[in-house]
Amino acid sequence: MAHTIRATVWNEFRHEKTHAEVIKVYPAGMHVVIAEALNKDGGITAKTATLDEPEHGLSEQVLKETDVLFWWGHMAHGEVDDKIVDRVQQHVLAGMGLICLHSAHFSKIFRRMMGTSCSLKWREAGEREVIWCTKPGHPITAGLSDPIILPHTEMYGEFFDVPEPESTIFISSFEGGEVFRSGLTWTRGAGKVFYFRPGHETYPIFFDKNIQQILANAARWAGSTPRQVIDCTHRKDMGWFAKK
Amino acid sequence: MAHTIRATVWNEFRHEKTHAEVIKVYPAGMHVVIAEALNKDGGITAKTATLDEPEHGLSEQVLKETDVLFWWGHMAHGEVDDKIVDRVQQHVLAGMGLICLHSAHFSKIFRRMMGTSCSLKWREAGEREVIWCTKPGHPITAGLSDPIILPHTEMYGEFFDVPEPESTIFISSFEGGEVFRSGLTWTRGAGKVFYFRPGHETYPIFFDKNIQQILANAARWAGSTPRQVIDCTHRKDMGWFAKK
Amino acid sequence: MAHTIRATVWNEFRHEKTHAEVIKVYPAGMHVVIAEALNKDGGITAKTATLDEPEHGLSEQVLKETDVLFWWGHMAHGEVDDKIVDRVQQHVLAGMGLICLHSAHFSKIFRRMMGTSCSLKWREAGEREVIWCTKPGHPITAGLSDPIILPHTEMYGEFFDVPEPESTIFISSFEGGEVFRSGLTWTRGAGKVFYFRPGHETYPIFFDKNIQQILANAARWAGSTPRQVIDCTHRKDMGWFAKK
Amino acid sequence: MAHTIRATVWNEFRHEKTHAEVIKVYPAGMHVVIAEALNKDGGITAKTATLDEPEHGLSEQVLKETDVLFWWGHMAHGEVDDKIVDRVQQHVLAGMGLICLHSAHFSKIFRRMMGTSCSLKWREAGEREVIWCTKPGHPITAGLSDPIILPHTEMYGEFFDVPEPESTIFISSFEGGEVFRSGLTWTRGAGKVFYFRPGHETYPIFFDKNIQQILANAARWAGSTPRQVIDCTHRKDMGWFAKK
Repeated sequence: MAHTIRATVWNEFRHEKTHAEVIKVYPAGMHVVIAEALNKDGGITAKTATLDEPEHGLSEQVLKETDVLFWWGHMAHGEVDDKIVDRVQQHVLAGMGLICLHSAHFSKIFRRMMGTSCSLKWREAGEREVIWCTKPGHPITAGLSDPIILPHTEMYGEFFDVPEPESTIFISSFEGGEVFRSGLTWTRGAGKVFYFRPGHETYPIFFDKNIQQILANAARWAGSTPRQVIDCTHRKDMGWFAKK
Repeated sequence: MAHTIRATVWNEFRHEKTHAEVIKVYPAGMHVVIAEALNKDGGITAKTATLDEPEHGLSEQVLKETDVLFWWGHMAHGEVDDKIVDRVQQHVLAGMGLICLHSAHFSKIFRRMMGTSCSLKWREAGEREVIWCTKPGHPITAGLSDPIILPHTEMYGEFFDVPEPESTIFISSFEGGEVFRSGLTWTRGAGKVFYFRPGHETYPIFFDKNIQQILANAARWAGSTPRQVIDCTHRKDMGWFAKK
Repeated sequence: MAHTIRATVWNEFRHEKTHAEVIKVYPAGMHVVIAEALNKDGGITAKTATLDEPEHGLSEQVLKETDVLFWWGHMAHGEVDDKIVDRVQQHVLAGMGLICLHSAHFSKIFRRMMGTSCSLKWREAGEREVIWCTKPGHPITAGLSDPIILPHTEMYGEFFDVPEPESTIFISSFEGGEVFRSGLTWTRGAGKVFYFRPGHETYPIFFDKNIQQILANAARWAGSTPRQVIDCTHRKDMGWFAKK
Repeated sequence: MAHTIRATVWNEFRHEKTHAEVIKVYPAGMHVVIAEALNKDGGITAKTATLDEPEHGLSEQVLKETDVLFWWGHMAHGEVDDKIVDRVQQHVLAGMGLICLHSAHFSKIFRRMMGTSCSLKWREAGEREVIWCTKPGHPITAGLSDPIILPHTEMYGEFFDVPEPESTIFISSFEGGEVFRSGLTWTRGAGKVFYFRPGHETYPIFFDKNIQQILANAARWAGSTPRQVIDCTHRKDMGWFAKK
């Protein structure tokens, strides 16, 4: 039951090498901050993987040993190898959780799982974001303030072109009056998928205690499905039935 | 196909008799303003019914001839006869559309159809509401501005305790930073249900052209289901099967 | 995390006192067989409650200490006090799980939570039922055979008049050719609701190992939500916002 | 309102050129039989397109003038050009309806829209299929027998690996005891998607009056969305808001 959740935090890890204002906030990379936060939680062990490693750090072996995969990408979505996207998709369908953060809305893997454009409106003006819980009782919302207030964020606005979610967990408002469905869940095959909006590279979002709580909650929620073997067979005769 | 939609606009019609500031905005009652707006639309014929009429104006005959029922109530929810609520529910399950407006979130019929408390946060401060479309292409959104801006409204805030909707059509933000899922749809039996938030009694919301467009769109969407006879039978033998 | 789930198994417990063929299968009542199966599981402690106890055995205190409530009823649905139904509903909305079995599709509490007629077709002919899993990876499906075959059951057939479920977990076929969505989930407020079809009073369904596994899985799934206090307040001023 | 629906019926059209038993049933191709059925309906004008035409018969111009696209494929899924799949997806997201028939469950376009493997079990034994309506009142179910019985079909069995649908419209049972969700709907962007199971190439399914009624109903349901332009913009300043 309460076995340890094995998380892999994937980051494209490019902004943190090239943009001075990002380096200031995340000198070792966002993946390191997220993994450290998850590791503090107790029931989770988190490793990291990045774009420039062989196979983007996502070998078959790594994915086999991953219960839940976090994904952050932005400037290099196009460099992710389609074969790795295929591989990640197969693991999600077999039960691996997938958590896509912020600009990962445009990642290949998220668009693959959704079937839609995943487009949205946006503005970088350091606005205040107020995040409201719209699903009390959902495991992802355990132990949080309501609302959560982030003083300075990039704005994302609706229409967010994703399929109607199974649960709308959070909705944000921004100073400019826009709204955004900031926490959404779907199931794909046996795998749970969670999209979570906050997390821009130039604001210290991933250091926020509420945000860290959400990421740990989400890891437990999405990472608790055992890998499944789906039985899709050519049933050549009616043998099973005849025997009964 | 394009037959006329028969709408009945039900209003508890009490504020408009007793509160001076409501009388100023809606001297003949909100139901009259809504019905007039629907009747201007072309494909819809709208009648009205109110709490103080016999059977609240909702006889079996009236409901039989109603394709879609609008409901506005607030101060007198408790005076609605449970037998009329039963009757309205039966017609919804058989295919009649139901559109609950604003404070009708706490009406007996809406809570009956939802199974939840339907509670929410609120504040009367004449705030600006910005209504964003989150379901482009849905018939209820045809021909609208996006966003729709209402300069002065009562605030409703999440958590809105309703079952996860089939479609989240609109989400509002308010000056105070709150958000609300302002347009939501469900199916109950064969009937379509739409909840629409705007419509306070002291603001001239129902005179707004966008709001009137939404009400007409919703009437067509929810009012297009023919009445169904649900076949729930004791199948005494396997006769139908034996014959095939 | 892995705290013990406290289950209460409610049974109307009438057939087992009056019908000889039911007494033969369930001499102590179905609730006793179900509770024993749950108690064998390890992480669950199950108690029972029945219609003829004071407050139907469902005092405020009992419900407060219940994480998940099982419900079986058939011949005496009408004798359940509406005040107890109100009380159970409040606890479900606050996070208590609710699992309705077989003929509980017509119980007051299930119809209350659904908002629909919950009607269906049926036939008692001792037919074979084949139960297929349509949601691999869902916690309720852990450790099961697929399909599950029950040699003799009462048939239930579609249309089952319930709201579109969040997950369709099982679908059954019957010898007569009918189909039925046999395992369905919804959320109401913070509470999880599971309807499970098998469980007729004259067949030894609740002794079946697969069925017992499903009931234990469902108890864990529906019983893991902590009780919630929903914040539905009149926000008289914009104070929280002004302070930020 | 009641404008004519423009349908394009796409068929890979290979079995009908190479397999004698298919030629016997559909000498001119399944697409011709389907288009003729749709054209008889009154409010629909149907054209056809096939794999071996330039651009598979699906030029930008053809798709622009298509309200709803039917898709039948089986032996040549892999020959469909990815660029045409991209183009069809864009039109669906902008509002074009998509109806995937039978073995099109494994087509590139259906898997693209779903994000899942879309796999299932199957058996070719000429079994009887009984199709039950699980969504009375839905436009796709208008004017049908319930159940619909097809005397000889290929079996498809669960688990069908698709995302939880918005509506489960039909469920089938087969002589071997299997079940299948035979009519399912989703929304992707502004476009409606319908999967419909019946339609094997060696059985005269598309000549069946009930099946033809479903196809015409589905064309009207999925083909009634006007093309949308989704506003996904970089909102550089808060101009719209400042002006209000």
